[in-house]
Amino acid sequence: MSERKKIAIIGVGLIGGSLALQLNEKGLASTITGVDNNPEHAAQALELALVDQMTGLEEAIHAADVVILAIPVDTIAEILPALLDKLDRQILIDLGSTKSALVNNVKGHPKRGRYVASHPMWGTEYSGPAAAVKGAFENKAVVICNADESDSDAIEWTRNMFRKIGMHLIEMNADDHDLHAAYVSHISHITSFALANTVLEKEREDQAIFEMASGGFESTVRLAKSNPAMWAPIFMQNRENVLDVLNEHISQLRKFKSCLEKENFEYLKELMEDANRIKRIIK
Amino acid sequence: MSERKKIAIIGVGLIGGSLALQLNEKGLASTITGVDNNPEHAAQALELALVDQMTGLEEAIHAADVVILAIPVDTIAEILPALLDKLDRQILIDLGSTKSALVNNVKGHPKRGRYVASHPMWGTEYSGPAAAVKGAFENKAVVICNADESDSDAIEWTRNMFRKIGMHLIEMNADDHDLHAAYVSHISHITSFALANTVLEKEREDQAIFEMASGGFESTVRLAKSNPAMWAPIFMQNRENVLDVLNEHISQLRKFKSCLEKENFEYLKELMEDANRIKRIIK
Repeated sequence: MSERKKIAIIGVGLIGGSLALQLNEKGLASTITGVDNNPEHAAQALELALVDQMTGLEEAIHAADVVILAIPVDTIAEILPALLDKLDRQILIDLGSTKSALVNNVKGHPKRGRYVASHPMWGTEYSGPAAAVKGAFENKAVVICNADESDSDAIEWTRNMFRKIGMHLIEMNADDHDLHAAYVSHISHITSFALANTVLEKEREDQAIFEMASGGFESTVRLAKSNPAMWAPIFMQNRENVLDVLNEHISQLRKFKSCLEKENFEYLKELMEDANRIKRIIK
Repeated sequence: MSERKKIAIIGVGLIGGSLALQLNEKGLASTITGVDNNPEHAAQALELALVDQMTGLEEAIHAADVVILAIPVDTIAEILPALLDKLDRQILIDLGSTKSALVNNVKGHPKRGRYVASHPMWGTEYSGPAAAVKGAFENKAVVICNADESDSDAIEWTRNMFRKIGMHLIEMNADDHDLHAAYVSHISHITSFALANTVLEKEREDQAIFEMASGGFESTVRLAKSNPAMWAPIFMQNRENVLDVLNEHISQLRKFKSCLEKENFEYLKELMEDANRIKRIIK
């Protein structure tokens, strides 16, 4: 772990860019090479000094000790087997928000051991290299999945890297991860997107929203600014869990609706008192 | 306006307590007298020096130049006519989150002119005197409703007071206020309460939520910690508008559900791109 690694980051947006900053800050990289299909993002990543150089994918992988994937999960799923084919000594880590589809896609692959499936629980509603944040990931959780399917050198380096950038490790299997992620992250994004559409659909007076919106509105709706290219594939890959939570959420909203329709003040208060129990989890 | 007023604040919780701090800070009060039914809150308000003294309601009104109501909107609606009966010179201001039911309750009252209906668009998910915040209300909007029904001295003092504590004024009629408030505030609270219940219902592993929950979850669910005694009456008084927005919200969520069920990736992305338009309003 003392030795600095040559690191390639595929996708130098919000997540990849923020990780690059932390890898430099913590002295984990000897060089960071970026790869990005978007020429504007590639130029910005260099300009912002997130990476030392930008190259093509093949070249980056060939030269690297560690390859980190910070791209949408549909692309990860698509290219993961072919990427593994190209590796010999390298460690390959993905940072995607779903895990089952990814680990299933390389199950039994002869080089499966080089791959570590991870999900650092950090993000913002912004995207692209300019959204990269110093000190990101610190004091947040990272989930590492199916660690027993990774080679021990790969898993150890990955664990240490996440610890050094200030994250605390949680390990679980990919299916459990996807279930929990649906509850603690994916449903929040769906409700926020839908809330934005509700207000944009019904409230024609932008000026009124803008002037009257208080902190409460802003915090419930801010995730609606998130990047569809990143989030649509997450929802699709985790669709069974997300659908399950979404159905429950619609039925919880219907309880509020029914209370209002029937003017059932007592049950309305009870529903809200139930919801107050979230205090025991979120301080 | 140069003259400091004797101010009575009925309800020394989050809102009343925070306003007391600002009135002192900005030199608007010669004395602040608090009134609160909850003996614990009364003691805390004194201990935290939010108010100079706590007295009974009658005594407070009798001695005051300005009486400010920072209590749940069902109680405001209930006591407003009787309070007006007791006034001669005093200005009576309420800070409630609904306005139509309140102004309708005193329409035609012989002392209607002493009353100013206002809604400062600020709050947090916490409650009680200990939740009072220094510098609250600054740079936020305050809505004043049906200003033409108030006496000119009352409306002028109120406008100046809100300006001095750093708020920008919006004036509209009470019905318009309630409609806009349903969009920019009330629905956010409903979705947050319902989201908390969804997760508490489905996710039995508190530890997993606690460890994995990231900023996104916290921001969408934090309003679920809000006080039911304050919010249930708001939803009931504004039930027609809230129901209307809630129906729209459920139908927006159903669109996401249908996309997932049919694996309609293109329409899913389109819904999210639509939601991204909220960026033009919330930076």
